[in-house]
Amino acid sequence: MKLIRSPLEMNKIISQAKRKNNIIGFVPTMGALHAGHLSLVKQAVKESDLTIVSIYVNPKQFGAGEDLKQYPRFVKKDIKLCRSLGVNFLFLPNDKAMYPQGYSTFVDVEGLSRKLCGAFRPGHFKGVSSIVAKLLNIVTPDILYLGQKDAQQAIIIKRLVQDLNFRVKVKVMPIVRAKDGLALSSRNVYLSKKERNDSLVLYKALLLAKSMFDNGQRNSTRIVARMKQLVSNKKPLKIDYISIVDPVSLENVKKINQDCLVAIAVKIGKIRLIDNIRLNNAN
Amino acid sequence: MKLIRSPLEMNKIISQAKRKNNIIGFVPTMGALHAGHLSLVKQAVKESDLTIVSIYVNPKQFGAGEDLKQYPRFVKKDIKLCRSLGVNFLFLPNDKAMYPQGYSTFVDVEGLSRKLCGAFRPGHFKGVSSIVAKLLNIVTPDILYLGQKDAQQAIIIKRLVQDLNFRVKVKVMPIVRAKDGLALSSRNVYLSKKERNDSLVLYKALLLAKSMFDNGQRNSTRIVARMKQLVSNKKPLKIDYISIVDPVSLENVKKINQDCLVAIAVKIGKIRLIDNIRLNNAN
Repeated sequence: MKLIRSPLEMNKIISQAKRKNNIIGFVPTMGALHAGHLSLVKQAVKESDLTIVSIYVNPKQFGAGEDLKQYPRFVKKDIKLCRSLGVNFLFLPNDKAMYPQGYSTFVDVEGLSRKLCGAFRPGHFKGVSSIVAKLLNIVTPDILYLGQKDAQQAIIIKRLVQDLNFRVKVKVMPIVRAKDGLALSSRNVYLSKKERNDSLVLYKALLLAKSMFDNGQRNSTRIVARMKQLVSNKKPLKIDYISIVDPVSLENVKKINQDCLVAIAVKIGKIRLIDNIRLNNAN
Repeated sequence: MKLIRSPLEMNKIISQAKRKNNIIGFVPTMGALHAGHLSLVKQAVKESDLTIVSIYVNPKQFGAGEDLKQYPRFVKKDIKLCRSLGVNFLFLPNDKAMYPQGYSTFVDVEGLSRKLCGAFRPGHFKGVSSIVAKLLNIVTPDILYLGQKDAQQAIIIKRLVQDLNFRVKVKVMPIVRAKDGLALSSRNVYLSKKERNDSLVLYKALLLAKSMFDNGQRNSTRIVARMKQLVSNKKPLKIDYISIVDPVSLENVKKINQDCLVAIAVKIGKIRLIDNIRLNNAN
């Protein structure tokens, strides 16, 4: 596995590889890799001739007062993990390489970026969209691997890829959960034991939604009300939103006669947690 | 020369050509081709293995009340011209292909897009940046040819290419002028004889700036004042701006100790005309 820090060098290596018709698989990350990330990497290694992983904590997707400085960084461990899984190139750019002086171009998926988490993290998805556009141009992958944990992010990037005619297939891999049910997230390391225990209610609320749906409930207001009730029992948790939405437009769904995304976001202290589940209508 | 209307087909053809290491030259246009466009096309044909010209009147770069509907369209003539010059592929997408339902992604070069013409045409450069990003992904050219006539546009696109890591060289070709000095523009067809005659003052004002500069004047306020005086003599012309700016940042320059761009924009009736000249400091 080769470590690459220069966008230009990364791009040149890939350009050569593409001339040999190699299939390029790409997993963009902010590091602090957990089993969720690794499931993406493993899938990429399985399906691609060359697997590229990027680790870059993108400052432009953190809002003022968010956890940019505190964001967990375990680069040495990440490098070992990537090497052990058969990654070919690990792209590790720094801020100066990604945002040189005078940088001023941003990509925004309007509409979708304002909904759900976007309402609570203004500018976040613009930062994500911009860095993803850059990384797609640098790495020019054939397949881009994203995690379902960040459902809105995946939906936005799919839209971006389609709208801007990027020639890449987007694969969204399932959420990986800890044994206790908590969706894996680099930010989970922030949680105290008590907070972690309280946070388990997120997945419980999602399972409640699924169970109500499986038992025939199609009224999303009723499902959301029950979820809110359950989550509210855990006093330290402040709900940002609990929503049942269309998985392409992110518009609220009232009567669930289609495939839906149930998404939840809470704050516990300074930590923000998100989770989601799909409701699949067989009709 | 092959006419192509589907972005996907265009992209596939280019992908195949790139595997053979062909150099791809690309000239994006809104049609109504004049000798200015053709100078770009000729340069592309000279330097590239494959020359692609696109003709697409991009609705997203026209503001409300602007001339989208009236914009001159001479596609049959354009096709003949491109064929005669040795263009290999003419890309002619329609609105549905470029902006399918649900389209919502925009690229914005912040700062640069608000200055000069951007202040008078809100959203214009966002529309330009977005369509150029799309076209670059569809055509994946090695060289992109732009005209110096639209100086701000060229500056913005250079910034966009650098910021988003597009792997393309941007070449800006000199302004082509009619014998009377008027910079060629597709919109010149709108001008009456009288209006056209009045419009000649734009180039005269730019030549005045150049002459003052060549005679040692380095105070941009004085140069601009004299230009404004000259242009104001032609009553039908309303000045949007006359500015002397840095050709990378578009910031106003007070004392001209560097290469500068002198840019002018006026309205004459409903028609908007722009022109510019470079001042090159040998020091």
